[in-house]
Amino acid sequence: DEIKAFAREIVEREIERHAADGLGMVDYALASGGGRVLRHSEPYGFVKVAAGGVWLMNRNRVSNEAEKMIRPSFGEPGQCFALKGGSGFVEIRLRTAIVPEAVTLEHVAKSVAYDRSSAPKHCRVSGWMQGQDSTDLEISNAKMFLLTEFTYDLEKSNAQTFKVEPAAFNLVNTVRLDFTSNHGSATHTCIYRLRVHGHEPSPVPAMEILI
Amino acid sequence: DEIKAFAREIVEREIERHAADGLGMVDYALASGGGRVLRHSEPYGFVKVAAGGVWLMNRNRVSNEAEKMIRPSFGEPGQCFALKGGSGFVEIRLRTAIVPEAVTLEHVAKSVAYDRSSAPKHCRVSGWMQGQDSTDLEISNAKMFLLTEFTYDLEKSNAQTFKVEPAAFNLVNTVRLDFTSNHGSATHTCIYRLRVHGHEPSPVPAMEILI
Amino acid sequence: DEIKAFAREIVEREIERHAADGLGMVDYALASGGGRVLRHSEPYGFVKVAAGGVWLMNRNRVSNEAEKMIRPSFGEPGQCFALKGGSGFVEIRLRTAIVPEAVTLEHVAKSVAYDRSSAPKHCRVSGWMQGQDSTDLEISNAKMFLLTEFTYDLEKSNAQTFKVEPAAFNLVNTVRLDFTSNHGSATHTCIYRLRVHGHEPSPVPAMEILI
Ligand SMILES: [K+]
Ligand SMILES: [K+]
Ligand SMILES: [K+]
Repeated sequence: DEIKAFAREIVEREIERHAADGLGMVDYALASGGGRVLRHSEPYGFVKVAAGGVWLMNRNRVSNEAEKMIRPSFGEPGQCFALKGGSGFVEIRLRTAIVPEAVTLEHVAKSVAYDRSSAPKHCRVSGWMQGQDSTDLEISNAKMFLLTEFTYDLEKSNAQTFKVEPAAFNLVNTVRLDFTSNHGSATHTCIYRLRVHGHEPSPVPAMEILI
Repeated sequence: DEIKAFAREIVEREIERHAADGLGMVDYALASGGGRVLRHSEPYGFVKVAAGGVWLMNRNRVSNEAEKMIRPSFGEPGQCFALKGGSGFVEIRLRTAIVPEAVTLEHVAKSVAYDRSSAPKHCRVSGWMQGQDSTDLEISNAKMFLLTEFTYDLEKSNAQTFKVEPAAFNLVNTVRLDFTSNHGSATHTCIYRLRVHGHEPSPVPAMEILI
Repeated sequence: DEIKAFAREIVEREIERHAADGLGMVDYALASGGGRVLRHSEPYGFVKVAAGGVWLMNRNRVSNEAEKMIRPSFGEPGQCFALKGGSGFVEIRLRTAIVPEAVTLEHVAKSVAYDRSSAPKHCRVSGWMQGQDSTDLEISNAKMFLLTEFTYDLEKSNAQTFKVEPAAFNLVNTVRLDFTSNHGSATHTCIYRLRVHGHEPSPVPAMEILI
């Protein structure tokens, strides 16, 4: 009976976590939470159309497909943003400024994938604070700092979480993922989902400071 | 071995229930099943536009966002309908007339939520029968009766089911949720999902009655 | 402790499979993977409009609803393609040519269904290779061969997988489901999802052949 109760407890906890966006961790990059894609390198399969470009890219020249990176994939192959070549980048404005603690890079699960050679391999995630009304999307590298550097491993779980270096516990509202290689595809690299975890800074407790 | 079989059985049953819309209970308010939103109090963040109102509200003055309340949330923060203030109401036409047995109010899971102060707190669900061709959406209070009154508890599971009082086992095709308080937000209240459970009345067994 | 580890292992494996499109099997018919509906018998509830037909059917006279058959259902009743009557057919172009090994027919789960009389009953799945630029959709029956013949059983799991006869391990890029009966509905039959499993043919190992 003790064992039965224990088994039931594990099952309920794990299903609850699965139901809570798979990881049960708050994601500040999520589109439905207010995250949005600011920029990216050249998309794969992008059709250049003179006049009709309007429905393929919004005015900031962000592909309409790009938002797939900040939406759940629900186990479906193809629910990703495909970028041209084996290296590239994406920049995401978070829903609010946070102190970043971890990032998660997700690819499609092995058991349902047609081909995983398009998964990113060597990656670097950076962050910085950027003004909301910044019309110039070119940011100065001086403001950007490294959050974490990692290799996405095809043999591990399909959603892989990487801790941010404590040295980088500074406020950011924008993050950038640079991938410098993928798992073999000569033509493109797919980003299924990028999540950014952390905490919002506490409002300064003015009373305590004064006392 | 007996224990292994038992563990496997629990796991399969719980995953099956999770896969069956989370609760494994028929929902007569669900949009894909034919439910629809008839009316609601003022939406939060609604932009009043003279001419362009057409794409923000349909002709019955129902916000296009309102349907989110009768669609699954899939663990995503933001997949809700936000109403202005700490009190308000929504009215939903069910797919068909039923004898109501329970209602479920769902909010986003704690582990992935940015802030849960917008969750409804004190709630009242009422029901009645309304003609399909009723052009006047103002219903007479005389026809409406209470199904259940409850408090949404932030410490419990995120989808909370409340039984309908046996005294209210009468046929309804329309339900109304009134919330009179929320969990702290001064600006808005979010409804992630409202489900209505029950059974369709059996067709009168004419033969048996005659015999 | 051994038992605890075992329970945890089962839970993790089963949730992983559930998260991997429910079955953890590659599906070559999936819309997000490149599958598409080529033809089908008369849809149920199809409104014939002289001029406005454009938004109800695409130019190949495929209903816009048809794609629901090759998309996940996520436990929602209503996420299906409804065809008129108790018999009919659908034809699907796979993402690529494969050697078929199994097909899965899915209906809505019993616990959340309003009515399951619209589920298909006696079914036959056939396959063949069809040219990509074939403008004539009428295929010669000579090219088509049977993959499997089965009965969808309302008492079993809602996603039922049927093996392809080894005699039919031939390359196909198109499949056809014929249903000759349903579970009782006089008006229509619903296809929630049809999946096609198998493997892509290995590229011919030219060196080995030469040696
Ligand atoms: K995605
Ligand atoms: K929802
Ligand atoms: K479906």
